[in-house]
Amino acid sequence: MAVLRSYVSGSWRSPEDEGAPLRDAVTGEEVARVSSAGIDMGAALDHGRRVGGPVLRELTFHQRAALLKALASHLREHREELYGLSARTGATLNDSRFDVDGGIGVLFGYASKGKRELPNERFLVEGQVEPLGKGGTFVGQHLCTPSRGVAVQINAFNFPVWGPLEKLAPAFLAGVPSLIKPASQTAYLTARLVELIVESGILPEGAVQMVCGEPRDLLDHLTEQDIVAFTGSASTARLLRTHPAIVGNAVRFNAEADSLNCSILGPDAAPGTREFDLYVKQLVAEMTVKAGQKCTAIRRALVPASLVDDVAEATRERLSKVTVGDPSDPQVRMGALAGLDQREEVRRSLKALMDAGRAVFGDPMRVEVVGADAERGAFMSPILLRADDPGRAEPHEVEAFGPVSTLMPYEDAGQAVELAARGRGSLVGSVVTADRDFARRIVFGAAPWHGRLLVLNAEDAEESTGHGSPLPALVHGGPGRAGGGEEMGGVRGVVHHMRRTAVQAGPAMLTGLTGRWVPGTDRTVTDEHPFRKYLEDLRVGDTAVGGPREVTLADVDHFAEFTGDTFYAHMDEEAAKANPFFGGRVAHGYLVVSFAAGLFVDPDPGPVLANYGLENLRFLTPVNPGDELTVTLTAKQISPREGADYGEVRWDTDVTNQDGASVAKYDVLTLVAKRPAHD
Amino acid sequence: MAVLRSYVSGSWRSPEDEGAPLRDAVTGEEVARVSSAGIDMGAALDHGRRVGGPVLRELTFHQRAALLKALASHLREHREELYGLSARTGATLNDSRFDVDGGIGVLFGYASKGKRELPNERFLVEGQVEPLGKGGTFVGQHLCTPSRGVAVQINAFNFPVWGPLEKLAPAFLAGVPSLIKPASQTAYLTARLVELIVESGILPEGAVQMVCGEPRDLLDHLTEQDIVAFTGSASTARLLRTHPAIVGNAVRFNAEADSLNCSILGPDAAPGTREFDLYVKQLVAEMTVKAGQKCTAIRRALVPASLVDDVAEATRERLSKVTVGDPSDPQVRMGALAGLDQREEVRRSLKALMDAGRAVFGDPMRVEVVGADAERGAFMSPILLRADDPGRAEPHEVEAFGPVSTLMPYEDAGQAVELAARGRGSLVGSVVTADRDFARRIVFGAAPWHGRLLVLNAEDAEESTGHGSPLPALVHGGPGRAGGGEEMGGVRGVVHHMRRTAVQAGPAMLTGLTGRWVPGTDRTVTDEHPFRKYLEDLRVGDTAVGGPREVTLADVDHFAEFTGDTFYAHMDEEAAKANPFFGGRVAHGYLVVSFAAGLFVDPDPGPVLANYGLENLRFLTPVNPGDELTVTLTAKQISPREGADYGEVRWDTDVTNQDGASVAKYDVLTLVAKRPAHD
Repeated sequence: MAVLRSYVSGSWRSPEDEGAPLRDAVTGEEVARVSSAGIDMGAALDHGRRVGGPVLRELTFHQRAALLKALASHLREHREELYGLSARTGATLNDSRFDVDGGIGVLFGYASKGKRELPNERFLVEGQVEPLGKGGTFVGQHLCTPSRGVAVQINAFNFPVWGPLEKLAPAFLAGVPSLIKPASQTAYLTARLVELIVESGILPEGAVQMVCGEPRDLLDHLTEQDIVAFTGSASTARLLRTHPAIVGNAVRFNAEADSLNCSILGPDAAPGTREFDLYVKQLVAEMTVKAGQKCTAIRRALVPASLVDDVAEATRERLSKVTVGDPSDPQVRMGALAGLDQREEVRRSLKALMDAGRAVFGDPMRVEVVGADAERGAFMSPILLRADDPGRAEPHEVEAFGPVSTLMPYEDAGQAVELAARGRGSLVGSVVTADRDFARRIVFGAAPWHGRLLVLNAEDAEESTGHGSPLPALVHGGPGRAGGGEEMGGVRGVVHHMRRTAVQAGPAMLTGLTGRWVPGTDRTVTDEHPFRKYLEDLRVGDTAVGGPREVTLADVDHFAEFTGDTFYAHMDEEAAKANPFFGGRVAHGYLVVSFAAGLFVDPDPGPVLANYGLENLRFLTPVNPGDELTVTLTAKQISPREGADYGEVRWDTDVTNQDGASVAKYDVLTLVAKRPAHD
Repeated sequence: MAVLRSYVSGSWRSPEDEGAPLRDAVTGEEVARVSSAGIDMGAALDHGRRVGGPVLRELTFHQRAALLKALASHLREHREELYGLSARTGATLNDSRFDVDGGIGVLFGYASKGKRELPNERFLVEGQVEPLGKGGTFVGQHLCTPSRGVAVQINAFNFPVWGPLEKLAPAFLAGVPSLIKPASQTAYLTARLVELIVESGILPEGAVQMVCGEPRDLLDHLTEQDIVAFTGSASTARLLRTHPAIVGNAVRFNAEADSLNCSILGPDAAPGTREFDLYVKQLVAEMTVKAGQKCTAIRRALVPASLVDDVAEATRERLSKVTVGDPSDPQVRMGALAGLDQREEVRRSLKALMDAGRAVFGDPMRVEVVGADAERGAFMSPILLRADDPGRAEPHEVEAFGPVSTLMPYEDAGQAVELAARGRGSLVGSVVTADRDFARRIVFGAAPWHGRLLVLNAEDAEESTGHGSPLPALVHGGPGRAGGGEEMGGVRGVVHHMRRTAVQAGPAMLTGLTGRWVPGTDRTVTDEHPFRKYLEDLRVGDTAVGGPREVTLADVDHFAEFTGDTFYAHMDEEAAKANPFFGGRVAHGYLVVSFAAGLFVDPDPGPVLANYGLENLRFLTPVNPGDELTVTLTAKQISPREGADYGEVRWDTDVTNQDGASVAKYDVLTLVAKRPAHD
C-alpha cells in the first residue's frame, strides 16, 4: 500500500519509514500509510518564507484573487475523483459535497471578495486618515502588510477538503504561504487535493506545502511572523497554545474547536407551524450529515418545556427513516464515522451523557446497516437523548462527536439564554422562531457566547444554508470552549494574516507612501485639464479648479421650479430663518453639486468615460443667494483595473464659497480609460 | 506609613498584613506599603461581572462617551496633586505631564471617538449586510456585543496614570468593567488616581475596581468572557499567557511588552539638514524622558555608516547638557529611575551591551546629581553606546530599560530594514528623512515588524508627537517580542472588548434585530408623508414614493445649459454612442438626483430640518431621454442624538425607471426634529 508523500521545499518527499496504516471507514481495509519521518520541517518553513512569501507578495490582491478563482475552477473539474476518495472516509455523496464543493465554494467566495472588496494593490489601507495635529501637518494611517512568515494550518479529520481550503484561501489572498498539516485519519484525501493543486501549476511554488503524518518538531521552528491556524479538539488546542515557540515568539494562534452548539425552538413554534417542522428537520440533518462529525453540529436541542414531547416524537419519527450503511449506496442517508476509534470515543462520551438523559432514539451498540459489514465499518445509529433536568452538567460539557444530540426543556427566553451560555462558548447557535421579540432576546443574550447565530423561520428557510454551515463571508469560530478564534469572515480572515501598522507622517509623505492623495498635500494645477489624461498619465494630486460662479436668487427659484424641489428652506425667507441651521433662504444642495459639475467638467470626449457615483457627500455651510462657488477637484486615488482597458479614479472635491469656506465636500468616482495600445 | 487600600466589590479594603514598603525613587524614603493579603479576588471579578457589567451595558456608546469626558475633565482638575505624587517615582514635571496629561488625553480621545464614530446604541453593527442567497431572503450581518466578563488590566510601573487610563477607556466605552492591577513599585500614584475616580462618582459602581499588591490567585478565577490586558516585560507576558485559566478558557489575552525599538536616519539627512537635527534631538529626548523607562524608547539608533561619527558627536554634545537630579527641581532635565532595583537591572544589561559596543557618552556607575543624594536616589547618567558591527546580537536582543541607546551603522536601506527586523518585533520604529523613496522602502520593509512607524522630517516636525508617544487613535502594540498585541487604535480597541457574532436571518428579521432597514424587508407606505413625522414617530421602513416623471431631451439640454455641464455624453448622440457605457445621449446623474429630490420632498416646514449629505451614490443604469423616473425613499436608520432636540435619519433611496430597473441608489442623510415638549 502506498505511503502518502509530503510536498515540501519544492518537491514530493516520501517518508523514511513505512508509516502507519490508514483504514477505510466502511470496510476497514488499508487505504494508505502515513508518516512524516525524515521530513525536514525547519527547511519546509524556510522554503515558504524564502520562496513562497516573496513571490506571493509581488502579486496584488486582484492577481491573487484571479489565481484563487482559477484554482477553484480547476478543482471543480476534478471533484468526482475527490468524492470517490471521500466515500472511503465514511461520507455519503451529500457529505462529500458538503466537504468538497464547500471547500471549492470558499475559494470562489474569496476570489470574489478579493476582487470586489480589496484594492488592486499589495497592501491594505485600513480606515480613515487620522488627524494627529490641529495644523494638519501630522497625520496617521493604518496599513496592513502581509506577515513575512508561513501560515501553518493544522486541520481536523472531518473536513479533509473544506478544512485546508478555508484556511488556504484567506492566507493566499493576504500574500502568505501555507503549510497544510492534515489529520492523519483522512490525510489521503487531502494529499490528493494537494496533488491536484500542485499539478495544476496555478499557484506559485512555495505558496502551498503539505506535511502528512505527525507534526514532529514543526512547531519548534516557528518564529514571530508565522501564524498557526488549528482546527480540532479543545484539549489539543490548549496543548498547542502553550508550545514554547508559540508563546515565546507571540505567534498568532487561532483555534477553532468543536463545541456544544445549541439550537433553540421558539415558544411560537408549536406543532403544525412551519418553524416546528424546520426545527425538527434541521436537528435531524445536523445529527446525520457527516454522521454528526461536525464542529458545528447541534449537540443541545433546547425547546419550550411544553413542546418537548412533540419534538421528541417528531424527531424520532424522522430519525427512524434514516438509512445507515455503505455511503456509496444512493439509498443510504448516513455513512460511517471516520473510524473505529472515533466510534469508541463517541460511545465513551455517551456513557457520561446517559447519566443525565435517556435515549429516546437509537442504541449506541446496535445499528442496522445497509450494504456493509457492521463489524468492520465504523457504523453507529443516530442517538437522540432527552434530559428533563437541563441543569445537569453533562449535556453542556460532554461532547459526543458523532450523531448525538440531547433534547432539553427550557421555561422562558431568559433560561434559554442561560442554558445556551452553559456551553461556555460555541461556534454557532440557532433559534427557530417567527417571533421577533423572542429572537431579539435570544440573539442579544446569546451573542457574546457565539461566533455565529442563525435565526431560522419561514422567511429565510428557502435559502438558508442551515445551522451547521460556515460561510466564507461570515466569521467562523467562537469564544471559550470553541477556541476563542476567528476564521474567514471575508476580508477579516485576510487581515488576520497581515500585520497592522500605524504610520505617522506629514500628509505629502503619507501620499507618497500610500498612493492616495491626503488633504494637506500640494495640488498640481496644470494647463492641461486632468480629465484629458489617460489613466497612466494621471498622478494623484492632479487638480482642476473651476469657478467662481455666483448662485443667484433666480437660480434657486429656477432650480426649484425645474426639479420640483420646493422645500421651504429654499423658497421662503421667513420659514428658512426659523430653521435652526439656516439664516435665510438657501440654495439646494443638489444645485450646488450640479453647478460644481458644470464648473469642473471637461466637455469633449476624452479619457474620462463616466461619473459612476459619489461618496461621503456632506453639505457643510449653507449657500445663500449671492454666494460665489469655486470647485477644486483633485485626483485622490487611481486604481487600474486588472485585465480591463480602464480603471477607477476617485477625485477629492471641495466646493468653497467666496470666503474660502467649504460648502460641500465629497468624492467623485469616475471611470478613466487606459492609454490605447496605438497611442 | 499608610498601607494602600484596594477598591473591590464596592468598597475600599485594607490588606490583612502590613505589606511591603514602596520607596521614593529620589530619597529612598518609604512612601507607602502595599499588600493584597486577604483580598477576595474571585469576589471582585464576580462583582464586576454582576454589578459593573449589567449597568454599563444599559448605557449606549454615547452615554458612556459622555461619562468618559466628564471623568477626563474631573481628573484634569486634580492633575497637580497627581504631579506631586508622580515626582516621588523619579519623574520630572515634564515626565509627569507625559504620564498624567497623556492618560487624561486618552480619555478625551475615546470620548470623542465614541461620540463621532460609534452609534448611540448598545451594540455595534460591523460591516455591510452580506447577501447569502440569490433571492435576497437570507442575509448575514456581523454584530459586536460587550464581553460579559471583566477586563483585567495588569499595568507596568513606568506609567502609573497613563497605563491604567489607556486600558480603561476602550474597555469602558465597550461596556466592560475594569479591574486595575497596578505595578507595586508606583502603585501609590495609581491608587490615588482610582480614589479620584471613585470619589467623583462619575462612573457607575462596579465599572472600575483596583487591586494593589500581588495578584495572588486573581487569574485562577478568569472565565471565558474575561479579558486580560498586560503591559510589562516579555518574560512575564510569556508566563501569564500560559496560565491554565487563560489557556483553558481561551481568555482573550493582550500583551504589550517593551521592545528594542529602532530609529533610522536617512542617508539624505547629513549634518546641517533639518532632519539631522530632528534625529539627534529626538534620540536624546527618547533616552532621557522618564529616564528612558519607556516601552517605546529608542534602543537602537541606526544611521548611515558615513554619518555615525557626526551623530555620535552631536548626540554627545546634547546629552552633556542634560542635568540629572531631583525631578522637582525645575532646572533638572532627567530624574531618577523608578528604584534602586531598576538601576541594578539596567547596569546588568549594560554589561552585556558593552561586549558589543563602547560607551561614547556616560558612565553607568557615575553621575553628577543636582539637589539629591546620588546614593539614596536611583540616579543614572544617560549612556550612549556605539557598536560598529551592527551584526552583533546584543544590541538587538538585550534591553537596558533606562536612559540607554546603542548607535549602529548601516550600509543601505535593505540593511537598515534587516537590522530593524532583528528586534524581532517592536512597538515602534522611526525613520527621519525627507527622501520619499527611502521612506517608502523602510516603511514597507519594516511594517510587518512594527505596530507603529513614524516618518519624521521638516513637513511634520512642528506637530509630531514623536517616536515615543502612543496615541489613542492609533494602535499601540507590536508583533513578536513586543507581545503580539494591540491596544487603543480608536474603535479597534473598543471592539477588542466586544464579541463579534455573525447573525444570519431573513431581511425583515434582521431589520427587527438591528433597527436598520435591510433591503428585502417590507416597506410601509402610509398616507402621511414620512417627512411629516417627528423622530419618535418615525419607524424604519416608513416609505415615500414619488413619480413617475419623464426625463425629456429638453430637460437634458436645459440642465446642461443651466449648470454648464455639457459633457458630450449628455449632448452629442454620436459621441455618446461611441462611449463604452452609454447607448446614446444620457441624462446627467446630477439631474437624476435633483429630479428625485423634487419627487420625494415634502415642501412645508416640518420635522425634517435639513438634508446634510449623501452616501454611497451609484449610478447603475443610464437614463435616456424619454425614461420615466420613480423614487422610493425608505427610512433606514434612525439615530436620536444624545442631549439634542433632533437626530439623524438615513433614508435608503432607490430611483427606478419605467422598467423597474434601478438607475441610482444612495442614502440620503437628514436631520429630523424630536417631538417638541409641548406636543
